[in-house]
Amino acid sequence: MNFSDRLALAVERSGTPSLLGIDPHPDLLPPEFAAARDERLPRAERAQALQAFALELVDLAAGRVPAIKPQSAFFEAFGADGAVAWERVVRAAREAGLIVIGDVKRGDIASTAAAYAQAFLTGVSPADEPHLCDAITVNPYLGEDSVAPLVEACRERDRGVFVLVRTSNRGGSDFQLHGDPPLWREVARRVGAWGADLRGACGLSSIGAVVGATHANELADLRAALPTAWLLLPGYGAQGGKADDLAPAFAEGGRGALVNSSRGIAFAYRDSPGTAWKDAARRALDDMIADLSGVLRACR
Amino acid sequence: MNFSDRLALAVERSGTPSLLGIDPHPDLLPPEFAAARDERLPRAERAQALQAFALELVDLAAGRVPAIKPQSAFFEAFGADGAVAWERVVRAAREAGLIVIGDVKRGDIASTAAAYAQAFLTGVSPADEPHLCDAITVNPYLGEDSVAPLVEACRERDRGVFVLVRTSNRGGSDFQLHGDPPLWREVARRVGAWGADLRGACGLSSIGAVVGATHANELADLRAALPTAWLLLPGYGAQGGKADDLAPAFAEGGRGALVNSSRGIAFAYRDSPGTAWKDAARRALDDMIADLSGVLRACR
Repeated sequence: MNFSDRLALAVERSGTPSLLGIDPHPDLLPPEFAAARDERLPRAERAQALQAFALELVDLAAGRVPAIKPQSAFFEAFGADGAVAWERVVRAAREAGLIVIGDVKRGDIASTAAAYAQAFLTGVSPADEPHLCDAITVNPYLGEDSVAPLVEACRERDRGVFVLVRTSNRGGSDFQLHGDPPLWREVARRVGAWGADLRGACGLSSIGAVVGATHANELADLRAALPTAWLLLPGYGAQGGKADDLAPAFAEGGRGALVNSSRGIAFAYRDSPGTAWKDAARRALDDMIADLSGVLRACR
Repeated sequence: MNFSDRLALAVERSGTPSLLGIDPHPDLLPPEFAAARDERLPRAERAQALQAFALELVDLAAGRVPAIKPQSAFFEAFGADGAVAWERVVRAAREAGLIVIGDVKRGDIASTAAAYAQAFLTGVSPADEPHLCDAITVNPYLGEDSVAPLVEACRERDRGVFVLVRTSNRGGSDFQLHGDPPLWREVARRVGAWGADLRGACGLSSIGAVVGATHANELADLRAALPTAWLLLPGYGAQGGKADDLAPAFAEGGRGALVNSSRGIAFAYRDSPGTAWKDAARRALDDMIADLSGVLRACR
């Protein structure tokens, strides 16, 4: 089954478009995982603490949400030890039935992009399968030939990509709004073209887009520009967006969008003194799921 | 000493602006390293073959050129085993006195970009120093706040970054030429601003730019738009550019540009049947150095 249909099925089964982001920032981890930020410890030990926390989030996500989005940078900070942790976390998530969207934001010229496809989507041998991602995020700055090898991997191996189109960080306006029409529209147009023949039975394509959720007035525009793309909305909660603002991003029938929250879930304990971190995270995730279910009902 | 001055010194000492790219594509490796492409072997063994080849290139580069540019993707394809190889190669290059420009093309929102700075430029503890890069390549699509943590790392730890401005691949025109003036000019303007207070005694900044070398007519434009940036030109040899075309990229006195060749050196043996691969690579590197010395003389 192609990625888009797998994702649609997973969203339907779990009944929510919530995506749990796993951004294990060492400085924000609960005290139980303080080893991750202790410079006196060997790096391997610190990476293990990071991994232990990420695995707890996988456990929290399993059965509740369709997918997780681990952020590669926080693992890469621990070098080769972080890479070991990354593979274990991805493997655990896939074994738990979660779809894994690796937030790696890679982008490079064609032959190099093919190596990135191997790194995350196809592997260098069949033995890599258990720790590969179902999809990754991709940076489009280098243009079509830099994305093509990843699209090819999606086609051949039923994987997906989410291309950065419009981001909600402050600097997202620096270049993405350049020109008239703004650059993001041209990127969106290309994303549509790249994904045109990768549409699943659900009507949506395996070539999706990352679009900032804090620009509520832009979301309807983005959805119109990308009528058959899955939209990955990273801005729920901590970054500002709330469910009602996100409704325009959904396609007909309340489908086609994934709403991510990372810190708002994982580090909810910081706003709930006296609550165990995982209880606080579970409650925050349940709140998000409830909040979004209202949006979905309104879309239907 | 800041990165820009270290680089200027290294170029002066070695007498060439040549940069050896290390892109260990398994399919192109000499037969001695065929283990890297043998799917039946354990991944660790394959990554070791990749590493052995990369270390031979480090050996070739040492004393001949000021810097190497390893391409991260080819290591990442081998997952955690590739990450081990990456760290060993970077460490060996730095021990050999080479400046290491990690070709990683990262780019993400601020807090994540800070984690990428740790991964490649600053480490998570002082013990990481030996395998950190002197500089990395950076993708600007997410704008200023995504680059700022990396610029900060350059300031605090005497590191450098090379921001993708204009690339020479076919798709480089898809978005980089968007708008009027084209996007790359706006990116170039920002790169100048980000690097304004990171200029060294040599007059050039530690915030450099990657600019495609196959657009010879654009190079003078790029140099004019980036008067105090180091320019990293990736297109020598295999990708089409030749030394004469590159002259406009150099600043006054023949300084301020690094010219990269990867496959044209490492895989020169493929065009020289009967020659040992390393002899062919050494000859190709010597030819490039001789070719570029003519350009530098003409600039002076």
